Amino acid sequence: MPAVARRFLAEGHLIDSGILTRMLNAIVDAGADYRVIEFAMGKVRTDPSRVELDVSCADGEKLAALTGLLVNQGCYEKEVGEAVLRAAPRDSCVPDDFYATSNRRTQVYREGAWRDVADMRMDGVIVVQGRSLSCRLIRNVKAGDQVVCTSRSVRIIPLFPEHESEEFGFMANDVSSERSVDVAISRVAEELARQKRDGGRVAVVAGPVVIHTGGGPALAALIRDGYVSALLAGNALGVHDVESALFGTSLGIALDTARPVFEGHRNHIRAINAIFTHGTLPAAVKAGALTSGIMYECIRAGIPYVLAGSLRDDGPLPDTEMDMLAAQRAYGALVKGCSMVIMLSTMLHSIATGNMIPAWTKTICVDINPAVVTKLSDRGSGQTIGIVTDVGLFLRSLAEKLQR
Amino acid sequence: MPAVARRFLAEGHLIDSGILTRMLNAIVDAGADYRVIEFAMGKVRTDPSRVELDVSCADGEKLAALTGLLVNQGCYEKEVGEAVLRAAPRDSCVPDDFYATSNRRTQVYREGAWRDVADMRMDGVIVVQGRSLSCRLIRNVKAGDQVVCTSRSVRIIPLFPEHESEEFGFMANDVSSERSVDVAISRVAEELARQKRDGGRVAVVAGPVVIHTGGGPALAALIRDGYVSALLAGNALGVHDVESALFGTSLGIALDTARPVFEGHRNHIRAINAIFTHGTLPAAVKAGALTSGIMYECIRAGIPYVLAGSLRDDGPLPDTEMDMLAAQRAYGALVKGCSMVIMLSTMLHSIATGNMIPAWTKTICVDINPAVVTKLSDRGSGQTIGIVTDVGLFLRSLAEKLQR
Amino acid sequence: MPAVARRFLAEGHLIDSGILTRMLNAIVDAGADYRVIEFAMGKVRTDPSRVELDVSCADGEKLAALTGLLVNQGCYEKEVGEAVLRAAPRDSCVPDDFYATSNRRTQVYREGAWRDVADMRMDGVIVVQGRSLSCRLIRNVKAGDQVVCTSRSVRIIPLFPEHESEEFGFMANDVSSERSVDVAISRVAEELARQKRDGGRVAVVAGPVVIHTGGGPALAALIRDGYVSALLAGNALGVHDVESALFGTSLGIALDTARPVFEGHRNHIRAINAIFTHGTLPAAVKAGALTSGIMYECIRAGIPYVLAGSLRDDGPLPDTEMDMLAAQRAYGALVKGCSMVIMLSTMLHSIATGNMIPAWTKTICVDINPAVVTKLSDRGSGQTIGIVTDVGLFLRSLAEKLQR
Amino acid sequence: MPAVARRFLAEGHLIDSGILTRMLNAIVDAGADYRVIEFAMGKVRTDPSRVELDVSCADGEKLAALTGLLVNQGCYEKEVGEAVLRAAPRDSCVPDDFYATSNRRTQVYREGAWRDVADMRMDGVIVVQGRSLSCRLIRNVKAGDQVVCTSRSVRIIPLFPEHESEEFGFMANDVSSERSVDVAISRVAEELARQKRDGGRVAVVAGPVVIHTGGGPALAALIRDGYVSALLAGNALGVHDVESALFGTSLGIALDTARPVFEGHRNHIRAINAIFTHGTLPAAVKAGALTSGIMYECIRAGIPYVLAGSLRDDGPLPDTEMDMLAAQRAYGALVKGCSMVIMLSTMLHSIATGNMIPAWTKTICVDINPAVVTKLSDRGSGQTIGIVTDVGLFLRSLAEKLQR
Repeated sequence: MPAVARRFLAEGHLIDSGILTRMLNAIVDAGADYRVIEFAMGKVRTDPSRVELDVSCADGEKLAALTGLLVNQGCYEKEVGEAVLRAAPRDSCVPDDFYATSNRRTQVYREGAWRDVADMRMDGVIVVQGRSLSCRLIRNVKAGDQVVCTSRSVRIIPLFPEHESEEFGFMANDVSSERSVDVAISRVAEELARQKRDGGRVAVVAGPVVIHTGGGPALAALIRDGYVSALLAGNALGVHDVESALFGTSLGIALDTARPVFEGHRNHIRAINAIFTHGTLPAAVKAGALTSGIMYECIRAGIPYVLAGSLRDDGPLPDTEMDMLAAQRAYGALVKGCSMVIMLSTMLHSIATGNMIPAWTKTICVDINPAVVTKLSDRGSGQTIGIVTDVGLFLRSLAEKLQR
Repeated sequence: MPAVARRFLAEGHLIDSGILTRMLNAIVDAGADYRVIEFAMGKVRTDPSRVELDVSCADGEKLAALTGLLVNQGCYEKEVGEAVLRAAPRDSCVPDDFYATSNRRTQVYREGAWRDVADMRMDGVIVVQGRSLSCRLIRNVKAGDQVVCTSRSVRIIPLFPEHESEEFGFMANDVSSERSVDVAISRVAEELARQKRDGGRVAVVAGPVVIHTGGGPALAALIRDGYVSALLAGNALGVHDVESALFGTSLGIALDTARPVFEGHRNHIRAINAIFTHGTLPAAVKAGALTSGIMYECIRAGIPYVLAGSLRDDGPLPDTEMDMLAAQRAYGALVKGCSMVIMLSTMLHSIATGNMIPAWTKTICVDINPAVVTKLSDRGSGQTIGIVTDVGLFLRSLAEKLQR
Repeated sequence: MPAVARRFLAEGHLIDSGILTRMLNAIVDAGADYRVIEFAMGKVRTDPSRVELDVSCADGEKLAALTGLLVNQGCYEKEVGEAVLRAAPRDSCVPDDFYATSNRRTQVYREGAWRDVADMRMDGVIVVQGRSLSCRLIRNVKAGDQVVCTSRSVRIIPLFPEHESEEFGFMANDVSSERSVDVAISRVAEELARQKRDGGRVAVVAGPVVIHTGGGPALAALIRDGYVSALLAGNALGVHDVESALFGTSLGIALDTARPVFEGHRNHIRAINAIFTHGTLPAAVKAGALTSGIMYECIRAGIPYVLAGSLRDDGPLPDTEMDMLAAQRAYGALVKGCSMVIMLSTMLHSIATGNMIPAWTKTICVDINPAVVTKLSDRGSGQTIGIVTDVGLFLRSLAEKLQR
Repeated sequence: MPAVARRFLAEGHLIDSGILTRMLNAIVDAGADYRVIEFAMGKVRTDPSRVELDVSCADGEKLAALTGLLVNQGCYEKEVGEAVLRAAPRDSCVPDDFYATSNRRTQVYREGAWRDVADMRMDGVIVVQGRSLSCRLIRNVKAGDQVVCTSRSVRIIPLFPEHESEEFGFMANDVSSERSVDVAISRVAEELARQKRDGGRVAVVAGPVVIHTGGGPALAALIRDGYVSALLAGNALGVHDVESALFGTSLGIALDTARPVFEGHRNHIRAINAIFTHGTLPAAVKAGALTSGIMYECIRAGIPYVLAGSLRDDGPLPDTEMDMLAAQRAYGALVKGCSMVIMLSTMLHSIATGNMIPAWTKTICVDINPAVVTKLSDRGSGQTIGIVTDVGLFLRSLAEKLQR
């Protein structure tokens, strides 16, 4: 017999966004029950709906857990009270009932009102400092920080699909290699042109497959033409970009003939060695030793970039950040405020970036493997629009459309 | 202790083609032994080599089986005798020790000389009629036909890599989605131009993904411009080609916007119904009801085509051949004498075609899934060059290169 | 300005099933508008909801198309009239505004009442004969048949998730290779035990990968132990099953050592030849020539099976049906009345079967490639639960769990 | 006209290993020519062969490059001279004509004799210190170090296939999801038993998919039973292992029911937080807070492990090494001297490990995606034997076979 109950409210496009469906399913899946107290359905398309319902459960702990799920769907408790704050017991450590953030707009009821949380990202906690609330990674929490606990005074502002569907909605349905990507490329080109015109900031996350598949010159052109505000990549992109600029190869394969070349197997190490000779990538550009490619265009145009290291890196280049905490900070700084992120054939850097950006950032992921896009969505970046295609042909065609 | 032995000869580019390596490995893997009687290595690149060796084995049956493997590598017995012929005991049935063919040039020792076998394809048997030998499917063998048995008087003429490497060798190494396909497309374009100029016959094997990915107009252009000699496809290609010509959709997705359209879910059935109204595809063209697309261009230009049915077909179109034995015969007739086959995103029709063509036919397979190309090679069509990319962008780019 | 409008009704679990969400989205995507006349939301979990709304659109044709989409979601027109019937103009040909069926329970308003349609499957039409209505493939329509046209008097009874979720819901969420399949196998085992106990009919659709991956003996055991009511396969399953029974190999690879064997490359043709010697599979079993394997167990137990041919078949076996229309009929006859279908690693036969079965048939699809399951759902068999794993280990583990 | 020529020698199993084939192809591909001076083919299986040939080329630089390729195949120059040594111009920087190492046994001609190089791995350089030679990463080279330059005095001792084929050769042929893995698991079980008996060292490289697919308990059992000498993993393995030990979930999915649980979305962060509460994983074990799982078994048995960080890590755990240079050193220390490496569903850590180990280490890679195994081989770890299957079922079955 239900021993405990709470009353929840939700408002907005509850039906067309599917929020109400997910709420009811969450309740039933939890073995709890609901009773609709009031439901006012929007009469026409632009009207919001509003629901008020009691959720009851035999087990208080389950109800607390369910509350977390409902809050994540955009519900909030009717009888909202002041946020529960508890002090972090030590550095990088929070009370066990901490509220774990999602990547959507979030408010906390504090001092009598719903207040916005700054710096939203997924899998963080909310720390209160005076009147301001901000999202923070647990590792950055200090002993004594006031941390928001339980989900009872938290409210998430759902993204309603129509806000975004106008330009990109056509691609949002599913991930398939059986679609015409030419139309998708046209849409991305139009969006890039709009971002440039409107002063948007576009971050590109790129893997070395961009170089291997011959997409390097096209991406370099996008940078040169001002469509890219920041480049987030790994050591391998830098290495193979330099290799292709200095020797015309990528992993030892000549880019103009697609055949292996004789010095090939040494070329990526020679490229690293060449940069070490000058000290850094910018020094090599300044010395006139590096005169083309993606890194060259970034350096020449002053576009900020980060090359993050990984366990499998050769070299690495002197410019590569091998401390992952520093690399995460550097990535985070570059994506902050970006209005659009384009992810090109790299699961590692794409998931890392997806973890950092709020859900309202326009996000495109291009990969020949549909599983990469699926995985990105599974990991919480559900806003990602996937384009399943050859990234080399994609970039070539995108650059052509933008140059017309 | 080795009880039985046979002496084998092989000649040609034994080292650079890897044939000798495969021979020795086959012997050792079989638990047999060899003794090299004579080996003359070609002194320079253009010289052939020649080897003579004794193969011995404790078990006569194993040696017979091993002989089959060695013959498949291009060896033949030194003490060759007249071919063993046995009568087929009944229709579609051959003696148990029948020789199973490969898809390479094959000779049989008969009436004192090595004689060519006509109509080579894999997984057939060799039937002797008077002086002529030809390859035949078992199901086409008639009771009493003289069938070549055992591999002792059979000789395969290996393909040496240099014969082919000139134009295509660059792509032959492996199957990878991490290559620049732009170069590969250029090579295919050059080869198609050469085939047209030299009167070659190019068969295109195409799946419906060609239409879904927006490659239809490009393939239609290739047909219109005379690059295609025959089209081998299935019911679905025909249906979606007609759907896109009549309604601008493919499986209900609008090709110009990549969005689902309202009538969409019915369109492929409406397309079939529309053709039934006229009776056949050519009748629909004649009546002016079908005025664009792949099928239209084939019909207008008189390019022969086959639409083979399958178990999963809707409709099918009245033009689709639903009897698989008839469909195999029709495919076989169209690929006979083709100098090049281009396979576009359809494993079923590509493997079917691969089974029918001799190994010296230039074969290109384009698919976004690398496993398709691998499987094609595993099934015996080892000559296939794979291009892992989006077939829509591939065709679009190929048509552009050919129209310049 | 909206020129035309229609009033629709829908009842049932409109919110938790997501139906209302999909309805509103379909309306907005179509550029139409709605006005909610009445909405009664179920107060508790078991209560149905009910909605009545006006849909208006500037364009009458668009509204007709939209009506089709809404009907597919389970709406029906409030002012329902008698079904529009038109005579088929000729054999295999229907009026252009025919109603195309889905695979869900369907009713037509006829002679003053909603009447059930028999033999539901997707992509058919509804033919009226006297008082009875049945679903039929267009190719089976005869000139003069009365065909239901437009969707205005059609109503689909939606499947509500809770009906099915009890046993299988745990697996229904998504397709991922990153899940524990051991739990899923336990659930399938429980369901198979229940089906056997309750007299359910379970059809197995199996591809040759079952044999290649060593799953043959486990599937044979399931058949022997009475868990399988019908086997739907292709020529290749039959051929490699016989090959493994006679020679211990599959495509020439020994199943006990996973190494190629010497006679291997000929074994699948020898297997076909051996069956031809006896005439048919049952004759080979009767003659004592085939004494184990999947086909043997089916024949011994009198389990009906169909081996459908395809364009790529070698042989085929004399038992293989090479006429695809006959093969579709044979498949259709075997799945009729099945309560569960298990699809094992074959996209071709699985899609073919999915086309034939109603949406309320429990459907499991096991494949190592997640794209196969996705494609099956995209083609309309949305009820399919995918298990992404190695089919050989799956069957081995399933048989073990059932034998405990 | 050939202007330059060099004479090369090679000895060993040149034919059956395919080395001679690759040598001749490399020469022809380079546009160079050869003349065979002498060729003595091994008469029987156990005899080595020996070849001496002149390679000539119009271009001295091309010949130098070709020399590198031939040396990599196991050739060496007949007129070998003392190794060319040049001082490193600065830290982490080598002369441009440095010799880049492979992962095979290597000798350098130095002070009148061929001398072994210690610490072989791929993509390093060879540094001479007094009489000893060792392989070193460029980043560890100090200004003034004597570095071996050009490939003229280098010799690689090829691995001949028979050395390894005895236990594992059966699996070495190709990568396919269409094989019976049950046999492969039996072979791996036998090999693990042999390694344990003979005092071999087995490193396991494991990704978090091991936990998600329910393979955690089986891997924990292998560690407990003494089959594992070192564990190389990333932060995610540690996090999800702790999550499953503390909460019974992996990424929020309950491992016993495969259903999402309510607290699920927070569990991996709660797991991290729990370890931070105790300080480290060993402290949590000591405190009795962590009492099962992979990490627990390692800590209890004193098996060394490394958790390497990555850019996408949440947390990370306090035990995770986030400095990639330190992580590479830690990995390198653990694999040093290992006789076998088993890679379980993690491309990143597997490629990183593959880069560090010599080619004669037995290497098994298990992944459901065949592309991972292919990529590992492409990156130089050609000795890797791939098993394409579900890693959860693989570990479960492996542990069962070892416990019998």
